[in-house]
Amino acid sequence: MTQTKTRQWRLARRPVGMAQEADFTLAEADLTAPREGEALVRTIYLSVDPYMRGRISEGPSYASPVPIGGVMVGGTVGQVLASRDPDIKDGDLVVGYWGWQDHAVVKARGLTKLDPKDAPISTAVGVLGMPGRTAYFGLLDVGLPRPGDTVFVSGAAGAVGATVGQIARITGCTAVGSAGGGAKIAYLKEIGFDGTLDYKAENDLRAALDRACPKGIDVYFDNVGGALTDAVLERINLGARVVICGQIAGYNERGKEQGPRNLWQLIVKRARIQGMLVSDFDHRADEANTRLRQWIREGRIKYRETVVDGLENAPKAFIGLFTGANIGKQLVRVGPDPTR
Amino acid sequence: MTQTKTRQWRLARRPVGMAQEADFTLAEADLTAPREGEALVRTIYLSVDPYMRGRISEGPSYASPVPIGGVMVGGTVGQVLASRDPDIKDGDLVVGYWGWQDHAVVKARGLTKLDPKDAPISTAVGVLGMPGRTAYFGLLDVGLPRPGDTVFVSGAAGAVGATVGQIARITGCTAVGSAGGGAKIAYLKEIGFDGTLDYKAENDLRAALDRACPKGIDVYFDNVGGALTDAVLERINLGARVVICGQIAGYNERGKEQGPRNLWQLIVKRARIQGMLVSDFDHRADEANTRLRQWIREGRIKYRETVVDGLENAPKAFIGLFTGANIGKQLVRVGPDPTR
Repeated sequence: MTQTKTRQWRLARRPVGMAQEADFTLAEADLTAPREGEALVRTIYLSVDPYMRGRISEGPSYASPVPIGGVMVGGTVGQVLASRDPDIKDGDLVVGYWGWQDHAVVKARGLTKLDPKDAPISTAVGVLGMPGRTAYFGLLDVGLPRPGDTVFVSGAAGAVGATVGQIARITGCTAVGSAGGGAKIAYLKEIGFDGTLDYKAENDLRAALDRACPKGIDVYFDNVGGALTDAVLERINLGARVVICGQIAGYNERGKEQGPRNLWQLIVKRARIQGMLVSDFDHRADEANTRLRQWIREGRIKYRETVVDGLENAPKAFIGLFTGANIGKQLVRVGPDPTR
Repeated sequence: MTQTKTRQWRLARRPVGMAQEADFTLAEADLTAPREGEALVRTIYLSVDPYMRGRISEGPSYASPVPIGGVMVGGTVGQVLASRDPDIKDGDLVVGYWGWQDHAVVKARGLTKLDPKDAPISTAVGVLGMPGRTAYFGLLDVGLPRPGDTVFVSGAAGAVGATVGQIARITGCTAVGSAGGGAKIAYLKEIGFDGTLDYKAENDLRAALDRACPKGIDVYFDNVGGALTDAVLERINLGARVVICGQIAGYNERGKEQGPRNLWQLIVKRARIQGMLVSDFDHRADEANTRLRQWIREGRIKYRETVVDGLENAPKAFIGLFTGANIGKQLVRVGPDPTR
């Protein structure tokens, strides 16, 4: 084995409020030689996602937090350098979950082989990966959209939100998305959103929502939370479904964000708010991926990637998710992509 | 027609904050003679219910508000004095919705005949009326309880909450209820709640919930809202269902009550919060009434009534709902009950 070291980002301390680069440490670690059923991989793309903010907090969540000193978790696309598993060959392109490091020795059964003729390999952590499946199951299984519904998506220019809006249109719905800034709004229009709301340009979210969603809101796919959700809940239609996918507005809050207690609206509208986590739908991943791949081939789903180069820039790319730096899927390119 | 006058409570002004007696005016009005298809009725029992607070506010709700000067709405049990409808006879005991007045001329098809051999006629606005059906459909159709679940009910000593807890037990669940004060807690124990929480006696709602619901909460049937709901949402189990039936803690708030924005918990627990309104289940009223009547006969559902005498005391009885004056169903006895 020629590669005996890996550079890896470890969690240095739990962030207080907004995550900072100093919350992470770049370190070098020795690699063990792959044992039976393991493979040495090099990282090509590292995915950074808003959910990771929850994984570095102490608080109760759906998974135990990354320990202090632990390697940061994350979806990864890479290439096999040395395999000791019969199903994985040297040179194979794979998607896995080995985190913020440039090399790793991993269990081969945690890897899924990728065919670059199928789709660009980076999409395995984007529109054909966790974010795409989140959009697919969150909208279709939890949001239960009906043709003619108005589907309002917050964080619509992100990897999940952009896909939600396009699936909503495929379902026969009117898709309205919110995002911050002219470039993102232009992107939403480019990928076919029927309406948009630039929350950074609006002083009055309520009035802006009324203009953007003149027929009210039947499905609210929420990646953001906070004041926008307060305003949406006053504009939902009878029987509306609110999908809580993310609450990025609050992820870097120090205490508990305060807002109006507005559950009365759910009685008025006999509506529901439901939280979703994509891993609950892992047993149906093939269904989502097959359809998403077809919709991409047909040009009905478009996607965009924002790529930052260099493992050293992973914390910066991660923090940028919370300041709105990315359009579409945020990736860190850690090593050369042999297919491009 | 011997009776030509009615005394009626009219809405004098929209309450600001806590409703007051001065928000209502007692007035006398002339009765018209019943026309074809109408009947003159005298009121025996008037139901006062928390939902009426929403009906006298300006804000958007599920029904248009009582106009200033209009007769206060409400469920009523009474006796027919003069009928001009073939299906309704003089002397019949009926339940209807003619509001806060001692006599009324009403459409006969808005009346349902009561058989006092079946159940005390007052139950037609209580456990066999709107509150009973709210408990039945809210718990079973929206809360979806499974045997073994912990069902936590707020406002558990009220007409709805007490019935919810007992249906939860019939369903094989553990029923835990919250109420304020020793008399109500004793009542909850008497009717079979497995656990109780006296919110007036507890300084730390979170610790009290942990003690009362050691296995967490699978179904939260919420009549109250506010700080108790904030605490419950941190204690729900995976896949929990929260039924928003009422939010009495906030009904007399002047502005919008503030609280933590805690929808993140719904992702962590893949839980849902759903609002319910009993009128959506009106087409299945017979189903609920048949089963509730049977459970009462079998002694599996008990109920209690708090009765105030005299139409003149209707505002006081109504306001008492918000200060916790009632155990079980709050009624105003407006005229003699010939069956007791």
